Amino acid sequence: MGSPVHRVSMGDTWSRQVHPDIESERCRQSFDVERLTNILDGGAQNTALRREVESIIHSDPEFSLKENYFMSQRERYEAGVRRRFHVQMLAQRLGWLENGCELHYAYRAISGDLGLGLHSIFLKALRNLGSEEQIAKWAPLCEKFQIITTYAQTELGHGTYLQGLETEATYDADTQEFVIHSPTLTATKWWPGDLGRSATHALVQAQLICSGAQQGMHAFIVPIRSLQDHTPLPGITIGDIGPKMDLEHVDNGFLQLDHVRVPRENMLSRFAQVSPDGTYIKLGTAQSNYFSMVEARVNILSNEILPVLQKACVIAIRYSVLRRQSKLRPSDLEAKILDHQTQQQKLFPQLATAYAFHFLANSILEFFHDSHSAILDRDFSLLPELHALSSGIKAMVSDFCIQGTELCRRACGGHGYSSLSGLPSLVTRVTASCTYEGENTVLYLQMARFLVKSYMQVQASPVSTSQRSLPKSVAYLITPGLDRCPAQRAADFLHPELYTMAWAHVAVRLIKDSVHHLQTLLQSGADKHEAWNQTTVIHLQAAKAHSYYVSVKSFTEALEKLEDEPAVQQALKRLCDLYALHGILSNAGDFLHDGFLSGAQVDMVRTAYLDLLPLIRKDAILLTDAFDFTDQCLNSALGCYDGNVYERLFHWAQKSPTNAQGNPAYEKYIRPLLQSWRSKL
Amino acid sequence: MGSPVHRVSMGDTWSRQVHPDIESERCRQSFDVERLTNILDGGAQNTALRREVESIIHSDPEFSLKENYFMSQRERYEAGVRRRFHVQMLAQRLGWLENGCELHYAYRAISGDLGLGLHSIFLKALRNLGSEEQIAKWAPLCEKFQIITTYAQTELGHGTYLQGLETEATYDADTQEFVIHSPTLTATKWWPGDLGRSATHALVQAQLICSGAQQGMHAFIVPIRSLQDHTPLPGITIGDIGPKMDLEHVDNGFLQLDHVRVPRENMLSRFAQVSPDGTYIKLGTAQSNYFSMVEARVNILSNEILPVLQKACVIAIRYSVLRRQSKLRPSDLEAKILDHQTQQQKLFPQLATAYAFHFLANSILEFFHDSHSAILDRDFSLLPELHALSSGIKAMVSDFCIQGTELCRRACGGHGYSSLSGLPSLVTRVTASCTYEGENTVLYLQMARFLVKSYMQVQASPVSTSQRSLPKSVAYLITPGLDRCPAQRAADFLHPELYTMAWAHVAVRLIKDSVHHLQTLLQSGADKHEAWNQTTVIHLQAAKAHSYYVSVKSFTEALEKLEDEPAVQQALKRLCDLYALHGILSNAGDFLHDGFLSGAQVDMVRTAYLDLLPLIRKDAILLTDAFDFTDQCLNSALGCYDGNVYERLFHWAQKSPTNAQGNPAYEKYIRPLLQSWRSKL
Ligand SMILES: Cc1cc2nc3c(=O)[nH]c(=O)nc-3n(C[C@H](O)[C@H](O)[C@H](O)COP(=O)(O)OP(=O)(O)OC[C@H]3O[C@@H](n4cnc5c(N)ncnc54)[C@H](O)[C@@H]3O)c2cc1C
Ligand SMILES: Cc1cc2nc3c(=O)[nH]c(=O)nc-3n(C[C@H](O)[C@H](O)[C@H](O)COP(=O)(O)OP(=O)(O)OC[C@H]3O[C@@H](n4cnc5c(N)ncnc54)[C@H](O)[C@@H]3O)c2cc1C
Repeated sequence: MGSPVHRVSMGDTWSRQVHPDIESERCRQSFDVERLTNILDGGAQNTALRREVESIIHSDPEFSLKENYFMSQRERYEAGVRRRFHVQMLAQRLGWLENGCELHYAYRAISGDLGLGLHSIFLKALRNLGSEEQIAKWAPLCEKFQIITTYAQTELGHGTYLQGLETEATYDADTQEFVIHSPTLTATKWWPGDLGRSATHALVQAQLICSGAQQGMHAFIVPIRSLQDHTPLPGITIGDIGPKMDLEHVDNGFLQLDHVRVPRENMLSRFAQVSPDGTYIKLGTAQSNYFSMVEARVNILSNEILPVLQKACVIAIRYSVLRRQSKLRPSDLEAKILDHQTQQQKLFPQLATAYAFHFLANSILEFFHDSHSAILDRDFSLLPELHALSSGIKAMVSDFCIQGTELCRRACGGHGYSSLSGLPSLVTRVTASCTYEGENTVLYLQMARFLVKSYMQVQASPVSTSQRSLPKSVAYLITPGLDRCPAQRAADFLHPELYTMAWAHVAVRLIKDSVHHLQTLLQSGADKHEAWNQTTVIHLQAAKAHSYYVSVKSFTEALEKLEDEPAVQQALKRLCDLYALHGILSNAGDFLHDGFLSGAQVDMVRTAYLDLLPLIRKDAILLTDAFDFTDQCLNSALGCYDGNVYERLFHWAQKSPTNAQGNPAYEKYIRPLLQSWRSKL
Repeated sequence: MGSPVHRVSMGDTWSRQVHPDIESERCRQSFDVERLTNILDGGAQNTALRREVESIIHSDPEFSLKENYFMSQRERYEAGVRRRFHVQMLAQRLGWLENGCELHYAYRAISGDLGLGLHSIFLKALRNLGSEEQIAKWAPLCEKFQIITTYAQTELGHGTYLQGLETEATYDADTQEFVIHSPTLTATKWWPGDLGRSATHALVQAQLICSGAQQGMHAFIVPIRSLQDHTPLPGITIGDIGPKMDLEHVDNGFLQLDHVRVPRENMLSRFAQVSPDGTYIKLGTAQSNYFSMVEARVNILSNEILPVLQKACVIAIRYSVLRRQSKLRPSDLEAKILDHQTQQQKLFPQLATAYAFHFLANSILEFFHDSHSAILDRDFSLLPELHALSSGIKAMVSDFCIQGTELCRRACGGHGYSSLSGLPSLVTRVTASCTYEGENTVLYLQMARFLVKSYMQVQASPVSTSQRSLPKSVAYLITPGLDRCPAQRAADFLHPELYTMAWAHVAVRLIKDSVHHLQTLLQSGADKHEAWNQTTVIHLQAAKAHSYYVSVKSFTEALEKLEDEPAVQQALKRLCDLYALHGILSNAGDFLHDGFLSGAQVDMVRTAYLDLLPLIRKDAILLTDAFDFTDQCLNSALGCYDGNVYERLFHWAQKSPTNAQGNPAYEKYIRPLLQSWRSKL
């Protein structure tokens, strides 16, 4: 195999030699790592292109992330904008297209540490909600950064509940303009990225008022800063919302609009229009306005969220074959911590999840692409399912990735708390994903509403009708399953059909249960909103089980397609098994509840699960190598390919500014403190 | 009730008026909040003293935390040292004793944001491991900060496994000195607080070499920086380990020792001595050297870890009665988010945990004090139990507090990601507690070893013997329990005896199960270390169940003592019920496994649990007010007593330096970017 060029570490002399403790992990390969990398990339040609882009990026010092951990917030913002500038210059020079693979790979290589990212959200909203003319006018300006855009939806007092947005866009037929206005403090736009210090144009979501009525939320393009000198335009109050848990390279901002006028053409009008005289013309459904959020939600899975968990796995698992701590036998050396069963139990479920979600995100993306053009053509039949599925899956993926990343961090002990490990920033960054692009609880409940509806449809109509009309992702609601799991020994739980069926059983039972609770409350006379609220904890549980089922199913289906790659398939199947069984053990109560599994069977699951750990142990480094992250993009003292963790940690720490600065606190406080009692003696 | 002075917010004009949405929560009080505060403080006189100290601290601008969120790492460190200086000046002036209540309350008021904190760990180690002469010599120097101390145990390559420490202390009988030396890079001391830039003396844990043999880890006092000019002493290489996830006010450092000599008297010698000729004299057990770690572990529960969860609950719950989002009925205003069932489900278990752990920490502290003096007098009979219990409980408390704090943060949606909410720093700070003072998995496994031993003792001897000899915390291992839970309706699960018994049942079953697995492996011929490792996942589960049982029991016992306060008792009992039932639901599989609970009974638990939520809802604000944190110490735009969340968030954001700085990135990158295509046209 050797070490492909892009894996050679960052050029320090002491890093030329791969540490024997990690080298030994790579010498017996039960499968071809490069093949697995190709599969993850979607083909060998993609792998090649990606590496080409990576070497362009990494050979340019402008993109180096090395200093990141030592920068102030201000420097982080400036570096982000600087990288954006240089990436765009590269793109111009090399002819990389907006939305092309090269920019995508460049983004990955820079670990997303790039300013002015909201333009892609703006573009999505524009393409989904704008008319063809509007797209033709604004998209090129945005793509070429002739304007810098942001997406301004959330307000200080309003986020989740979009109907509650206070910003107003009142149509003035006399001038054929919209008057955009923030009537209260709580109407202040709050959070939009790139708004605080950078954007020149905002897509503002506001309550449309025309034909003498509120027409609900619509999108308006509003110039906010001068293209000449970048000062705020008249009527615009704008600024930065201040420090955050992370994402310091982004200037999330606030915006108040004081009767700002924009022309009629600035309202995005694919699904709704206002005619010159002020007549409101509706072309879409209530949901169609939310459609661009669906796309954003689907996209962040593989672009933003999942890579974080994958990197955390790479760092923690590599470190775990280098860190030695405690002896397994008195006569041995201290053991690699990855040989402790509890360490495997911490890390391998995360690794399995990282793979499971790769295939899950792909399948959702496929579904999105299949339904996208129909929806743009105003055929909304697939939108409810797409909306429900993307909501629940976004919630699950972000929840698990956040939790998994933090688990990986903790699994590195003290060094996992050092920024130089790379793990703290992964955690503080990914944890935002449970909130943005839709708050997770709210999203799960969106899925739950769809499940309730689907199940009621099954209840109400004969099986044959349901079979025809039920959306694909919930078709299993009518497949009759077994009441008892037929497994008789641990090995039986290694059959994908068996555990998929088990997950289906539990999901159906919980959905049924949630509908039953809702209906009981309704029948006892409860108001329907109250009844919904009082059953949401139960609905949440059902939506989670359904999501897990969907993820197990997509993993097993992806495995089936790997028939021609038996060695890779075998390695991944173990992860799939582990993923499914770990889920069963973590939710054993749901499987035992109706006797679907017996206690003895849960013990079998545990045996099967524990037996998988040492098998995965053998492949662990290969499975993380396969993600093929460069050292530069991992930017971790613990996670580099060569395994020289202690030298790197030591050398990086020396570069900390705290070691270069003098210590003014000594003269000011420490010396006086040391002498404070002396003076009294 | 009124608003006691210490609750008046930070003096902004717009904050004079309490927001009606939180005022209304306080107007019907089902119990006397002040009484509950007194109970938490351990008496009304403590509450009074605490408030006195708080008003001294808060009236002094040196202690203000206002600027914290806008400071660089360097400024955080300096501010920490500055506050320490001023606190010590106060203490000198007002006669506050080291270890006295006043300093403790001052520390709380400053939210622990104080430099040079390691001196208290040093003092504990000194008092527990030093001889009376050593204590007499060093303690006053340390208390008066005539020296600045650190505790240097962990090394770059070694943490958990203390036998693996590489730093050597070789006795030289000729000079009657120890030669302290770091033989390798991995022997570099790494992580000790206050070491990087502040300390003058380190307590160094090193392998003692004398009488021609390695004698294991011992503690040595080593001067490291000049008391004259603070430069490192000869043979000392020292510095800062660089940026961390948080705790930026602490200068965690590294230390390399090159044959540094200290006099024989600098080895702490309560439990082991080296005579002038180099003879090693052992006075303690293998465990006694670890005793100071036990004390540290017990102390951080209420001093460091628990207040974080309590504050997070205060902030998130107060915000949740002010934040309105989504309507519960179409005709209503948007609802307070705390009225959404799922929001209650997120926050109330955290609140219940915050109370449960208050009583738990108290009971462990009591046990520690009861056994402390005996141990110092070398009666080690209670040490194994104390060690096991403090290990497992530290692991549980930190695990739950970390998770709970992050849940509170997420429950605030977008604003929970803003540093100004106060929540991100609570999360990034408390998450370190799963690692320091003992890594949690390792600690749980320490407890597990004790449980295995105790259970084997039960197996081996007649009940009557066990009854006499079993340590108190595991005495329930021999109490015969029921095989089936007798509950017949949801209300039955509100009996403390019933759920305590249920937890006991599950803990005993899991301990039994773990011993059974271990013994089976041993009988099948496995090596005993291998057998242990292969059952650690199962042992971990048993230790967690035992810890939960202990916490439920301590809560119920604390409730019993509140007979004279029926109103407070009733409010707390609901939290105790919720705590116990939430634990059952989260681990339902363990209760269903052997049929102790049936599926129908689990449904009853869920009903009882869901029915508790609206009851706790009524008291929620009062229960958080009772913690009596000042606004200044919460330092949260979302969590202040007056509830003016949006004004505060808006005003604080304006103060962000990002809004005062110019934007150099505009001239350098944004303008050129905006014009880059123009030049080509
Ligand atoms: C890093 C970051 C970047 C962002 N970038 C942008 C951006 O570029 N542009 C933009 O417009 N916005 C942006 N946002 C804002 C983001 O979209 C919102 O924060 C998000 O939609 C969540 O809404 P919220 O903050 O109102 O949360 P809330 O809705 O206030 O949530 C608070 C709590 O209330 C609960 N809750 C709310 N409604 C319900 C309900 N109906 N049922 C049950 N529970 C409920 C939630 O579950 C949660 O626990 C960003 C936010 C962050 C953190
Ligand atoms: C903020 C902070 C402050 C600190 N302050 C100090 C200080 O003042 N002085 C000082 O001396 N030190 C200090 N430390 C160091 C701290 O004490 C150690 O980090 C801690 O003891 C954990 O040890 P470790 O880092 O070696 O973790 P490791 O032991 O390397 O843990 C890594 C992983 O290995 C696993 N593992 C290790 N051993 C076993 C085993 N036997 N069985 C199963 N799994 C195992 C762990 O569970 C974990 O998942 C500090 C650390 C931090 C983060």
